[in-house]
Parts: sequence; structure tokens; C-alpha cells
Amino acid sequence: MKNKDSERRSDLINKIKLRSKSEVKPQQIADAVLEGDINALSNAITLVESHREEDIKASADLLRLLLPHSGKSIRIGITGMPGAGKSTFIEALGMYLIQLGKKVAVLAVDPSSEQGKGSILGDKTRMNDLASHPESFIRPSPSSGIQGGVARKTRESIFLCEAAGFDTILIETVGVGQSETAVKSMVDLFMLISIAGAGDELQGIKRGIMEMADLVVVNKADGDNVSKSTAARMDIQRALHLFPATDSGWIPKSLLCSSIERTGLKEIWDTVLSFESQLQFNGYFEEHRKEQSTWWLKESIQDMLLSDFNEHPEVDKQKHVYENQVQSGEISVSEAAENLISLYKGFK
Amino acid sequence: MKNKDSERRSDLINKIKLRSKSEVKPQQIADAVLEGDINALSNAITLVESHREEDIKASADLLRLLLPHSGKSIRIGITGMPGAGKSTFIEALGMYLIQLGKKVAVLAVDPSSEQGKGSILGDKTRMNDLASHPESFIRPSPSSGIQGGVARKTRESIFLCEAAGFDTILIETVGVGQSETAVKSMVDLFMLISIAGAGDELQGIKRGIMEMADLVVVNKADGDNVSKSTAARMDIQRALHLFPATDSGWIPKSLLCSSIERTGLKEIWDTVLSFESQLQFNGYFEEHRKEQSTWWLKESIQDMLLSDFNEHPEVDKQKHVYENQVQSGEISVSEAAENLISLYKGFK
Repeated sequence: MKNKDSERRSDLINKIKLRSKSEVKPQQIADAVLEGDINALSNAITLVESHREEDIKASADLLRLLLPHSGKSIRIGITGMPGAGKSTFIEALGMYLIQLGKKVAVLAVDPSSEQGKGSILGDKTRMNDLASHPESFIRPSPSSGIQGGVARKTRESIFLCEAAGFDTILIETVGVGQSETAVKSMVDLFMLISIAGAGDELQGIKRGIMEMADLVVVNKADGDNVSKSTAARMDIQRALHLFPATDSGWIPKSLLCSSIERTGLKEIWDTVLSFESQLQFNGYFEEHRKEQSTWWLKESIQDMLLSDFNEHPEVDKQKHVYENQVQSGEISVSEAAENLISLYKGFK
Repeated sequence: MKNKDSERRSDLINKIKLRSKSEVKPQQIADAVLEGDINALSNAITLVESHREEDIKASADLLRLLLPHSGKSIRIGITGMPGAGKSTFIEALGMYLIQLGKKVAVLAVDPSSEQGKGSILGDKTRMNDLASHPESFIRPSPSSGIQGGVARKTRESIFLCEAAGFDTILIETVGVGQSETAVKSMVDLFMLISIAGAGDELQGIKRGIMEMADLVVVNKADGDNVSKSTAARMDIQRALHLFPATDSGWIPKSLLCSSIERTGLKEIWDTVLSFESQLQFNGYFEEHRKEQSTWWLKESIQDMLLSDFNEHPEVDKQKHVYENQVQSGEISVSEAAENLISLYKGFK
């Protein structure tokens, strides 16, 4: 990375931003991002995450400039129950990839942050080596957002990272079943981190998530834990066979790994590569990304339309009136909904 | 029922409708429904199910007139896998209730009908005794509808049946996990019909649904099947204990039944009554109905807003253009969604 250049540009951008927020120049940020300037990338993501009116306009311009330079990476979703060791695994895998000459970006989607609880993922303090390495970039989950908006911002951050030259994007999320669909819909490969002896109840919660996985990694396969982990892997392999075939033609795999002893990482990465080449070969890789775009367009329209509706001043004023009328049986739900929608559209 | 009166009124309404569709008089239909006129009730439901502009207006008026007379019934959702014997069970329970002096209406929500496949539920030919009894009313699922609209219409049909004097409303649906949330959200008590030996796979599919059930009935507990059914009931009872406590304070129960031998029906009905009195006593019954109204208002706004958006001529024209631009990486999903919403709102 051009560190001198990078610093100079960041200074410039910061000065521009200080002068006036509305004078953010998307072209300048875009140029700096394309040169691999990490500070510019951070600023770009902040811009995309912003809810300010003028930032929304600027981030649309920024994305228009950078989208043609995105797409040249493998996007990997990583989920798992709390305690499965996701952060340690990402640290181990990330460092392994950097040794292979890769540039690794780690993003996070934290469903709890949608309720304004702040981010718990992408915690730099738990990824010391990776966080301090110049060839890596770690960005925690945005700490607040509109309904469903957080994940959309993370997806756009992927494109920014790609434009900045990162070729491997890891997206971390908690495996509690709230954000997996969103993450699955922004990645090429979905990886579940599991551990041996995670009990029936835990397996139950993971059931729906396991069905989404292209690769299940049994982590903490070290020391006394190796034989238990091997058995767990066999159970998982059996479970994977029960699921219906995937659209991609890929047969989900399970592998062992120790993040602490840093074993199993080569097998995992070889599997990712064989996944990628198989799907590139059968054409599913690009097809899947297009389908994902369409899915996100639909989701985004729904989220943004409902937010816009709920924030409409007349709707906001009358919503509770209609809610009470519906609850007391004065008018039907259909009539109340129609009247509110008419208010929104300015007919009344 | 005042059959003479009823016939006269129906003739009148039909004449009015024949003269001109737009001259449907909600007040006249409402009066006839309140007198318990079954034909008027059928016409009222047809009106509520209609998508014609003038019918939507008339049905809103009709519901305004009848909603104050609704609510005085127990609403029971009945689900179960195909093969569990739902129709036969409803026939048996319905006839038992009529012998107790009840007036029983059977409605159906069929998720497959949303794709325009026609109704498969509430099949009168499989409920011979009930269908021909004057104290009962059976109405199949509407055969087509807008997204999510079918279930909303069924919920409004419940109110119409109540206004016509029906005190027990049974809402049938298939237990495949598509329409259960909608049905659960329109009933007071949710009943799952199960059978012995329904295999692991079947139980798996039912898992999410079992968690919703206030009462699980093991049907076909007759002949050679009694001991297997008793064992199945014990398994289910154990499974029910694993679920977290319900908001209502009710502890879900399981019971045996034979629809053919007509055994177990008294125990089932006694359980329904004790459910009702417990929830009336702790205040949850009314509270729950209010929460359901709010839920439906939210759902209906979402459905109707999205339909209105998608049917907007400019949106319809431009949607695919933006979809292609998003797929090819020309613009971001956020920008495309915002532009389409602006088109919808007439800003562009």
C-alpha cells in the first residue's frame, strides 16, 4: 500500500469534510479507495452507513464510481453459535490467507445492533494479529440502522473493500438465526463454525442454519478434544447428507480445525477454492450474484418503502387513531390500512 | 333460523345485485346477515373477497356495520399434516358441537390458493353431515388473492360469521408451515391434529407448528391403533413441556381422539372451554385479540403498500431497467430502490 500517498489523501479528505459536510467529494474518495488507501476506505464505509440526507446522495455517487471496480473477490460468510470461537477462527484463517499473499477484509453483521445495542462483532481486540497487519482491514458492524438497513450497508461495504483491492472478504455474524438469511444473500460461500458436544438444544437452533452451510468447520479440534471433534464431524457429515441438493450443485462438506494450533486451515482453504472453481465452471457463481442483487433490490424496496411510510408525518399522526379504531372494532383492518395508505399518497 | 324471511331477503339482494353491481346496498346485506340469513352471509363473504373497486368500498361499509356485532365466538384454528384426518375430525367435532346447541362455521385458509391453484380445503363433500346441517356453515378458501390477502379476507369472514350468530368458528389450514402464522394470528386457540407413527421427518416439519399449538390431538386412536396413539400422545406431551411458557399462561395439552368412532370429543371440548375460561379470567383473551388486530393492521399495510407499489405503471415500466442496472453493477441497490420509490411517489 502506498502509505505516504495514502496519508496525504486522507488529510485532504478530512480537511474537505471539516470545511463543510456537504462538500464531500465522491470522486476524490473513490480515487483514494481505488489506490488502496485504508483511511479513505474507512471514510467511504462511514459515508455509506450514514443516514444524513446529503450523505445518502454522496454515497450513491461514490458507489456508482466504485461498483465497476468491485466483484473481484471471494465473499465468505462465517456464522456459529456464541462460544464456537468465530473470532479466533477468523484471526487464524485471516493470517493464513495473508501468508498466501491475500488481502483480507473482515466485516460483521450483528442483528442485535439493529436495536441500537452497539456492535459486538468484528472485535479488533480479539483479532490482534490480523487487526495490526497492513494487508488486512477489519470493520465492526454498524451500530445502528433502519429496519434491515444494517445488512444492506454491510453488503455495500463489501463492494467498497473490493474496489480497494481486497480479494478475500469474510463476513462474520452470530448464529442465532436472525441475520443468517441476510448474510447468506451477500456471500458466495456460507461457512458454519461448530464445536463438539454442543448439545441437542444447540444443534436444534443450528438446524436451519446448517441447511444453509456450504462448509461446516468443527473448531477446537485440539488436545483432548480431537476424538470428540472427529465424532462430531461424522455426525454433521451425516446430517448434511439428509438435506436436499443445493442449487449450486455443490455437496456441502465438513472439516476439522484448531484455531489455536492453526491446523486444518489448508484443507479449509482448498475446499473454498474447489467450491469456487466448481461454481465458476458451471456458471452458478455469477448467476448467484445476480440473483442476490435482485433479492436485495426487493428487500431494500420493502424496507425503504415501509420506513418512508412510517415516517410520513400524517401517517405518524393518524396511525394510533386507526389502531385504536381497529382494536375497538369500529372499522376493519382493510379499511384502516387503505385509509393510511391514502394519507401517505396524499389523496386525503 | 327464519327461513322464509331469509329466502325473501336473499331474493331481494340478488335482484338488487342483478340490476347493477354498483348498487349493492351494504345496509340491506348487513340486516340480513344479522338475522342469520345464510345466503346473505355467503354474499357478504363474496363481497369481502372481491377485488373490484366498487366492492372494496361496499365491503368496507358492510364491515363497519357488522363489526360491532362480531366477536362473540370462540375462534379455533385447526392444522395438521395431510393424512392426519383434519376434515373428518372437523366433521366429528362440528356435529358434536351442534348436538350441544352450538352454531358452527368452518372457514379455510389454503396457502396454495394464493398461487391461484384453487381451494382444496373446507371441502364440503368430505363433511357431509356438517355441510347439510342447518346450524352449520362451511366456506372453502377463497381461490385467488393478492399477496397475503387471502388470509386477511378469511379473518374478515370470521367477523361476518359471528355477526350472523355463529358462536364457534373453526379455521382449517394445511400443516406445511406457510399459513400457520396467519391462522394463529386470527384465532383464540390453535389446535394441531397429529397421528401415531408419523415418522421423524413429519415430526420435524411439524416442530415449528407444534410450538404454536395450545392443544395437540392425536387422531385415529381407534382399533389396532390405540396403543400406538397413546405412546405418540406421551411423546408429544413430553415435547410440549420442552417449549418455553406461553404468553397466555396456558400449558399446552395433548389428547386422544377417534373421528370415526367419535371418541375423545368431549375431552377436547372440555379442554377448549377450560382454555377459554382461564384466559378470560386472566384478561389475556381480549388482550390477545387486540394484539392480533394490531398485527393484522401492520401486515395489511405492508401487503397493500407493496401491491400498490408494484402495480404503479411507472414502477412497472422501470423496475426491470433498474434490476438490470443493479445486476450489471451500474448502480447500487440503495440508489435503485430510492429511484423506484421516488417514481412511485411521483417525484420523478
